[in-house]
Amino acid sequence: MIKAPYLLYLGSTVDPLAIKTSRGIAMFRPEDAIGEFVREGGPLSLGLPQMGFAEAAAAGARTLILGVANAGGMLSEELIDDCEAALEAGLDIASGLHARLRDEPRLVAAAERNGRRLIDVRDAGSDLPVGNGLPRAGRRLLTVGTDCSVGKMVTALHLERAMRARGIAADFRATGQTGILIAGAGVPLDAVIADFISGAIERLSPAREDGGWDVIEGQGSLFHPSFAGVSTGLLHGAQPDAIVVCHDPSRTRMRGLPHYAVPSLTETIAANLQVGRLTSPDVIAVGIALNTSSLAREDALALCRRTAEETGLPVTDPVAFGVENIIDRMEQCFGESLQSSLRSA
Amino acid sequence: MIKAPYLLYLGSTVDPLAIKTSRGIAMFRPEDAIGEFVREGGPLSLGLPQMGFAEAAAAGARTLILGVANAGGMLSEELIDDCEAALEAGLDIASGLHARLRDEPRLVAAAERNGRRLIDVRDAGSDLPVGNGLPRAGRRLLTVGTDCSVGKMVTALHLERAMRARGIAADFRATGQTGILIAGAGVPLDAVIADFISGAIERLSPAREDGGWDVIEGQGSLFHPSFAGVSTGLLHGAQPDAIVVCHDPSRTRMRGLPHYAVPSLTETIAANLQVGRLTSPDVIAVGIALNTSSLAREDALALCRRTAEETGLPVTDPVAFGVENIIDRMEQCFGESLQSSLRSA
Repeated sequence: MIKAPYLLYLGSTVDPLAIKTSRGIAMFRPEDAIGEFVREGGPLSLGLPQMGFAEAAAAGARTLILGVANAGGMLSEELIDDCEAALEAGLDIASGLHARLRDEPRLVAAAERNGRRLIDVRDAGSDLPVGNGLPRAGRRLLTVGTDCSVGKMVTALHLERAMRARGIAADFRATGQTGILIAGAGVPLDAVIADFISGAIERLSPAREDGGWDVIEGQGSLFHPSFAGVSTGLLHGAQPDAIVVCHDPSRTRMRGLPHYAVPSLTETIAANLQVGRLTSPDVIAVGIALNTSSLAREDALALCRRTAEETGLPVTDPVAFGVENIIDRMEQCFGESLQSSLRSA
Repeated sequence: MIKAPYLLYLGSTVDPLAIKTSRGIAMFRPEDAIGEFVREGGPLSLGLPQMGFAEAAAAGARTLILGVANAGGMLSEELIDDCEAALEAGLDIASGLHARLRDEPRLVAAAERNGRRLIDVRDAGSDLPVGNGLPRAGRRLLTVGTDCSVGKMVTALHLERAMRARGIAADFRATGQTGILIAGAGVPLDAVIADFISGAIERLSPAREDGGWDVIEGQGSLFHPSFAGVSTGLLHGAQPDAIVVCHDPSRTRMRGLPHYAVPSLTETIAANLQVGRLTSPDVIAVGIALNTSSLAREDALALCRRTAEETGLPVTDPVAFGVENIIDRMEQCFGESLQSSLRSA
């Protein structure tokens, strides 16, 4: 969908948090990130070679990635100028901003003039199928959560990387804007029409015959009153063999909903397995991913140990401690399947 | 949203099943249905006064209702001719057809010329809120189901009618095209963007202070792999005090999914109460509605009795036997609330 390699746009962005998508690409798709574009005086860098648009195109870049967040998600004049110049230099543009590239006439004209594409990753396709729930070949892991924004995407990306490092065929499947820009493809599930949620995931993660795994990025939470419908359809469409439950132990109330308590891990595991069994009768939990960034390292390790004792599952913070213990558990539970994907990888 | 009273369009429709929406309006909103439009030679009638468009407008009609289904959901030339004539006569047009009125230039021009409205009830609003799950005033009943198309709309309409007949303030809240045309307002839930499912229902059924009930039309089933996400978001947004479970005892496999068995009533009740408790901790089941149209009357009555013994709930076929036993149970469970709505009605 999005052609690699990429030039990552930082522009004159000042807030380090606003470039987290670009940072994610540099971290999880280093082979695709051949350079960064920084405006004169722009204070941020990802440590990549700094390039102009023509220079990047000459170096092989195919797409300028707008992996930046800005106030209101609007396209500034400066950003439009830069995008137009990138199109003239022969690059496609992919954007996760709320404002759509296709709504900016100057960019539409420049893209047409240069035979380049404008890719708004917040747009869901209009031809999605209704889910059918039919069993399909291949192994799938879904990251689920106690709440929104507890590390489901990052956990899925770490799992993909660690599985590949062991020689297991594994592919991250993105369901949100940031994940789509990192993966270069995916479905922005929050933009899909309600009747097509599970069908969109069935298409995103179709049958695979190579014995490998799809590692699907979860969204929301079965316990989030705003978004549980999305999480339910995603769980049914994913037909996961395995789930990994993500949790932020510093959070006591649901994101954006202070009148709702965060559910326990035990409740979250039980509910996801129960709902998941409708389309994947043998689904199991294989691990818990905690975001312990607010804790000292020793406290974080102690919390992982305690949580493992309470749940009987491998527990880790993927960013701090990796996900090897979860992959170990997967090898115990799916040994034969992991072996076969190893052979075919 | 849709202005009453209505002229119901039958045109030259031949298939009695194709006018079920118009039949529903005539049955559940008789005070709004002042006439029917039948083309010369058209074989069907709902027994209403037959009128031309000018005649209907003179009799007070405000809207022509296209409560017809046709092959492919397209607008035929004949239908467009008739709609244009109706607009010229001063009527709005409301349509549940898949093809949109707003996509037909002749109709757009005629509506503008005459200051009339074209209402496509399959269009969801673009300004829907995200659900917040905050407790809100008022009593709500939601019809849920073991499957799609098992009588959730018809049951809700019968409940509204029977509650009103007892002097209880009650309003049907529509979530599908047919229901919206019957009620004159509502939200076409299958067209809503995934992130806004529960928010759309919170807006459809806002806080009410008169002690009365909203009777909300359910959609899909928690056990339908294609649509359970919609049903989940609807259940959370509805915050129901009470659910009525609808079921077609002649069905053994899920609609459109022969590889999925229909769940039991016991499972369906338990799952809906469990999921529903997230936003409505005290939700209870108050009855079961069976579609017994495939059974002889005696067998239907026996099935209702047997199901009541098994579940401890009042069981009926709303069409064949009414819903008085369910309202009785509601009076037992919500006596004070029903009394207060009685006083305010």
